[in-house]
Amino acid sequence: MRYAIEMVNEPPSHVAPNPRVGCVIVRDGRIIGQGSTRPPGGNHAEIEALDDAARKECEVKGATVYVTLEPCAHHGRTAPCADALIRAGVSRVVAAMTDPDPRVSGEGFSRLMAAGIDVISGVLENEAREMNLGFLSRIEHGRPWVRLKAAASLDGRTALPGGQSQWITSPAARDDGHIWRARADAILTGIGTVESDDPQLTVRAVEVSSQPRRIVVDSRLRISPDAQVLAGGGTWVFCAQPDPGKTALLKEKGTDIIVMPGKNGGVDLPAMMAELARREINKVHVEAGAILNGALVQAGCVDELLVYLAPSLMDEGHSICRLPALASLDDQIRMQFRDIAMIGPDLRVIARLE
Amino acid sequence: MRYAIEMVNEPPSHVAPNPRVGCVIVRDGRIIGQGSTRPPGGNHAEIEALDDAARKECEVKGATVYVTLEPCAHHGRTAPCADALIRAGVSRVVAAMTDPDPRVSGEGFSRLMAAGIDVISGVLENEAREMNLGFLSRIEHGRPWVRLKAAASLDGRTALPGGQSQWITSPAARDDGHIWRARADAILTGIGTVESDDPQLTVRAVEVSSQPRRIVVDSRLRISPDAQVLAGGGTWVFCAQPDPGKTALLKEKGTDIIVMPGKNGGVDLPAMMAELARREINKVHVEAGAILNGALVQAGCVDELLVYLAPSLMDEGHSICRLPALASLDDQIRMQFRDIAMIGPDLRVIARLE
Repeated sequence: MRYAIEMVNEPPSHVAPNPRVGCVIVRDGRIIGQGSTRPPGGNHAEIEALDDAARKECEVKGATVYVTLEPCAHHGRTAPCADALIRAGVSRVVAAMTDPDPRVSGEGFSRLMAAGIDVISGVLENEAREMNLGFLSRIEHGRPWVRLKAAASLDGRTALPGGQSQWITSPAARDDGHIWRARADAILTGIGTVESDDPQLTVRAVEVSSQPRRIVVDSRLRISPDAQVLAGGGTWVFCAQPDPGKTALLKEKGTDIIVMPGKNGGVDLPAMMAELARREINKVHVEAGAILNGALVQAGCVDELLVYLAPSLMDEGHSICRLPALASLDDQIRMQFRDIAMIGPDLRVIARLE
Repeated sequence: MRYAIEMVNEPPSHVAPNPRVGCVIVRDGRIIGQGSTRPPGGNHAEIEALDDAARKECEVKGATVYVTLEPCAHHGRTAPCADALIRAGVSRVVAAMTDPDPRVSGEGFSRLMAAGIDVISGVLENEAREMNLGFLSRIEHGRPWVRLKAAASLDGRTALPGGQSQWITSPAARDDGHIWRARADAILTGIGTVESDDPQLTVRAVEVSSQPRRIVVDSRLRISPDAQVLAGGGTWVFCAQPDPGKTALLKEKGTDIIVMPGKNGGVDLPAMMAELARREINKVHVEAGAILNGALVQAGCVDELLVYLAPSLMDEGHSICRLPALASLDDQIRMQFRDIAMIGPDLRVIARLE
């Protein structure tokens, strides 16, 4: 099972909105087939592993199948994997976890057991869940897994009071940031960042098979049609009030405008996240300013912080996350550190919100 | 040599103002004597090692001596170690570094070589220097090694705007902070912290043979004679202007008042550090507020930051270090990260100023 997980993790494969699944078929203590889930329309891991065994002319009858997610039981873009395993005559299926997709959710296991196959589930479940945080968040909570990235001085300043922020952290940290961009299905920013930095929001430091979707939160649809984030089309802009003239102008750039009004004239952020899930976005990478960061955190829309800290002190400047004044220390936004590492001269901190 | 260094490092011995020195005597590939420098008035490492060999009835004639600092050549509180090694008839001395003390500074090596003893120096010099940062700073630069400790949220806030700071970090981090207090010869704070927190500034979470000296920077001598930091006597208070009445009152509490006026009505911080070095303080541990921290950093009086970061966000609040507005990012206070570690749920960062 660990091998099946590592197979998918190294290098991280990008198959969204599909879950990342690894499958290993073992017979007489030997791996006779292995595979991982392909992008939508392609095979699931079990079929890939069965095909691999067939290619090697290995007999799968009586074999044990290790798979990081319950085999599917429904006709989606592909035929049910449970049926394929039954047809292949395997004798045992060891899974890391049940598939929370309501079309599967135990139905795959039931079908296997009804066919006389031994089923074990829950092996390395935590590791398997970590592999599919985005898919699981979308299926279980109806919203993407949201990771918020920031680069700051050791005392938490992301820019000088005048806005200068290029650069606080090192090229090594910025390249590492692109690796994390590449892991997401979408990169989200706010109109403030678009206006001050005019970012492209593309993955450049690492190779990717496709660029993540670009998303801008822009309540009053202030964005310039010439903004780099719109270049090449495909960008989604969320606003709070319709503006047919501006919308028409932006549509010419291939931009999709989604009106999602919330309180106080802003975008309804939880509704926006639900819409992103509906559009099959599993993972969102946020690179925004303190105001949007703060709004997302307060709306409960952030799962994880990815913070690069430079070995410097600035004192005054922009904060990572704008929050209302705290009445007491009990009101702090609480997290748990998940990982710390040096990236070049900088420190990278990953923390999960509680 | 590595053994000689580790012998002194584990557990960290406290012999200030003496340097921390380890000595190992080897003959025929076997350690026949070892020792480390005792507190002032006690033996230096070489004598301890020679005595150890004598106790074990081992012959040191012809042996090799590994010592982490050049053997002394002067009559200080003890007789010169170089002479003792010559008398003992050792044939080779391997040292990690030259003693920068002007009374030694090569003189120890010269005396050994004049007696026909082989001398090698510079073995694991960096490690040996790390062991004696305080002693070396005092001897080489005429000021103590200064480590500034802070506890903050991940976004660098040490207290709410109203001052509430107890507690941002965990009990584990606070206990770890006491280990670092115990490594210093003096703990320094400012009158602001005394008035807001009334700290004892003692080492409590770990056992110590003696408490570090307590020092308060209090320009206008505002400190209350009832402040806990004065309890038990022995505290040094640096102020900027004499106040005979208040001084008399504080002297009754066993407090020493040192007048050291600087610019703008404050204490002359570099002069204060020079005075601390003169008083044989090797290492100072600062636990103060943003204003004194900032003044010390700007005066070039800080060597290292020891920062505990809690997994939380606060946004508004006190900063680690008050600095004047930066004209550009080039003006940031630059450091290098030396060590990162998890302490309970918190992150500990050690950074050296450039």
